[in-house]
Amino acid sequence: MSIRIKPLSGFPEFLPAGRLAEQAVQDMLREVFELHGFAPIETRAVETMDSLTRKGEITKEVYVVRRLHAEDGAGDQLGLHFDLTVPFARYVTENAGHLAFPFRRYQIQKVWRGERPQEGRYREFVQADIDIVGENTLAAHHDVEVALVMLEVFERLHTQFGLPPVVMHVNNRLLAEGFYRGLGVEDHLAVLQRVDKLDKIGPAAVVGLLVDELGLTPEQAQACLDLATIQAADTSFVDRVRALGVSHPLLDEGLDALAAVVEAASAVVPGRLIADLKIARGLDYYTGTVYETEMEGFASLGSICSGGRYDSLATDGKRTWPGVGISIGLSRILAPLIGKGEFTASRSVPTCVLVAVDTEETRASSLDIAARLRARGIPAEVAPKADKYGRQIRYADRRGIPYVWFGASVKDIRSGDQADADPDTWMPPTDDLHPTVSYTAS
Amino acid sequence: MSIRIKPLSGFPEFLPAGRLAEQAVQDMLREVFELHGFAPIETRAVETMDSLTRKGEITKEVYVVRRLHAEDGAGDQLGLHFDLTVPFARYVTENAGHLAFPFRRYQIQKVWRGERPQEGRYREFVQADIDIVGENTLAAHHDVEVALVMLEVFERLHTQFGLPPVVMHVNNRLLAEGFYRGLGVEDHLAVLQRVDKLDKIGPAAVVGLLVDELGLTPEQAQACLDLATIQAADTSFVDRVRALGVSHPLLDEGLDALAAVVEAASAVVPGRLIADLKIARGLDYYTGTVYETEMEGFASLGSICSGGRYDSLATDGKRTWPGVGISIGLSRILAPLIGKGEFTASRSVPTCVLVAVDTEETRASSLDIAARLRARGIPAEVAPKADKYGRQIRYADRRGIPYVWFGASVKDIRSGDQADADPDTWMPPTDDLHPTVSYTAS
Repeated sequence: MSIRIKPLSGFPEFLPAGRLAEQAVQDMLREVFELHGFAPIETRAVETMDSLTRKGEITKEVYVVRRLHAEDGAGDQLGLHFDLTVPFARYVTENAGHLAFPFRRYQIQKVWRGERPQEGRYREFVQADIDIVGENTLAAHHDVEVALVMLEVFERLHTQFGLPPVVMHVNNRLLAEGFYRGLGVEDHLAVLQRVDKLDKIGPAAVVGLLVDELGLTPEQAQACLDLATIQAADTSFVDRVRALGVSHPLLDEGLDALAAVVEAASAVVPGRLIADLKIARGLDYYTGTVYETEMEGFASLGSICSGGRYDSLATDGKRTWPGVGISIGLSRILAPLIGKGEFTASRSVPTCVLVAVDTEETRASSLDIAARLRARGIPAEVAPKADKYGRQIRYADRRGIPYVWFGASVKDIRSGDQADADPDTWMPPTDDLHPTVSYTAS
Repeated sequence: MSIRIKPLSGFPEFLPAGRLAEQAVQDMLREVFELHGFAPIETRAVETMDSLTRKGEITKEVYVVRRLHAEDGAGDQLGLHFDLTVPFARYVTENAGHLAFPFRRYQIQKVWRGERPQEGRYREFVQADIDIVGENTLAAHHDVEVALVMLEVFERLHTQFGLPPVVMHVNNRLLAEGFYRGLGVEDHLAVLQRVDKLDKIGPAAVVGLLVDELGLTPEQAQACLDLATIQAADTSFVDRVRALGVSHPLLDEGLDALAAVVEAASAVVPGRLIADLKIARGLDYYTGTVYETEMEGFASLGSICSGGRYDSLATDGKRTWPGVGISIGLSRILAPLIGKGEFTASRSVPTCVLVAVDTEETRASSLDIAARLRARGIPAEVAPKADKYGRQIRYADRRGIPYVWFGASVKDIRSGDQADADPDTWMPPTDDLHPTVSYTAS
């Protein structure tokens, strides 16, 4: 068929070396999640429009899906999922009788949003979520746990792949709510919404909004601002909040919870997690701990890993499932770097050895050598044509294949070294066995 | 949020043990494909309707996708891809300048079709494709290669996972065309279409169609039928075709090509690949070798792995990319078995060890033990609550977690054996480290 070439804006696709790099990261995520006992699930790409539009303002970004020749009004209206939380809530409700709670799951899948495409914002992108949900109750230590699992992921992204380190910013909704109530301000969500704009509009403008729009006194507004500017990598933030002279039971509860998270994290990954009392998270279903994450030098991407505690992810009327979860925006991190060639694999194919072919009549013996290499886990392919050896080496070179096998010897085509070798015993250095993946800033 | 429970027909979702099983198979596919040097790619879920509807009759099955608030006529009409071949053709054309040919890729992704759901037919399902495409030319030995790679996959499904063995049925379009032309029949595609119905309507009805609809003489029709009934696991089919007394250059070419495939396969995987001269494959872009695959005892599923050689997968007017590829309908095989619980994992979580918690005050020491186990690749989680030990064991038991760690000892909760253990040296038996996956017919 003849195809008109037309890339679609917002739908990133990678060349093989880019996909190898993305795949290596997804493998690492899976390994970390599974080491921590999270079980994999996948949910279907579509949900009913009914469940997708429950949250109101996101409706404009949904992709509607319908069969080309569907009769009007036939069946449910369907849309592509725009996150993995709505599908997970539906999955838990639907399968509650078959799941053991607390239920720990991870999910790495594509999601779709009809947003205007820009760097780090796509219409199709991969998210990686972990959540722990309980039946009716869920212990507070899981708030620490999910943060540490994600920080372990980022530590591996840093040490194994060379990506910049991250800082996770954590707050607690109860802390803010208790503080505002202790100040005598009842509409705590409205205050939080204004405070959330601090980085964008600056402190003076925030105070202005609190006074003009919400009717706070200048003193109340200043106290809210003072709270919002507190940051600490250790539990010293507790005394700084106390010094503001506000008290409320919810504030105590929030301070204790946040201190527990910060303390546990500073023991395991010092400096990677800080209490940041201005963090709000837009979605109003969060009810306790909230997380945002910034990658060093990539502030323009915004938060690359966010989440929080929700008292009720889902309910069927009788039972509720409280939970805590965090989601990594994998494409937001990787796609721009892969696109620029800064994050890539050391070769464009999995192949470690190209077995040369002497003549088409002796192709079978080359096939046999390749099979013996593969039997010991060495990715191998046979040259497509009994060309001159120079051309066969060029075939390998163009793909980054490090070794070419000739008869009873193997040649490292990077160094030119050639040595006798037995396909039943020869092993390449570990670093050559599979493509390696790394980040190099341009 | 409150969610109405409503499974969607045709969109299979699995419980965690089922997903673990599906994932194990996908990992194996990936391993085999990469050992053979196939590079991974993923393509976006959507294509322009223009490129999806190029093949006419499939349009009725396409899911159209549009933004909820898109203006009418804004931008391209998009649809979800219904296979991985159309997107791959577009990908090759779009990226030809960045790919090295022959280009070997694998692709494991979901596809969507608006078909009426039934067992083994879904609206959302996973396909796993391999293709080798050349620029302008592609050697014939790749027809053998892709068949052997897929047969290696099925051998692993059989020996490693316990699924029934398969038989791959192979034919060659040139063989049939040459034979019909040698008989003096020009419209070879029309004959092939009727012969393709042999299994459904029987030999007498096929002869009837050939005579009544296409005007063949009874002798010609009988010769076509005689050709179609030839099957052989070795190259003996060549003499049987010759004995029918027809000759044509295309027939010779087809016989040679098919004999080469059968001969190579019978040397490597005896009995798993047969020449079957009635195989047609519906899609008319195949131009040489065609493959279909049946799993023993699962004939009702139809072909679970099909493909063929195409002289021109794609063209941009100047260049063409001939190729050969095979696609496994992974969901068609696995989803019914996972749904019935016949194909599943040995436990519902990756966790190998549950570390018990004595009191909430000593949770940190349990966390430390779990971290030390994970550091050596042993999936571990910490009990969510400092419950009575019996309840902590029940937590493990409900999930199939084989080991519970108490202080300085580890208990196999299946046998009840408990022994002193050091988290820096203890290793479980290999079979317990990760969930095992297997098929057990009910």
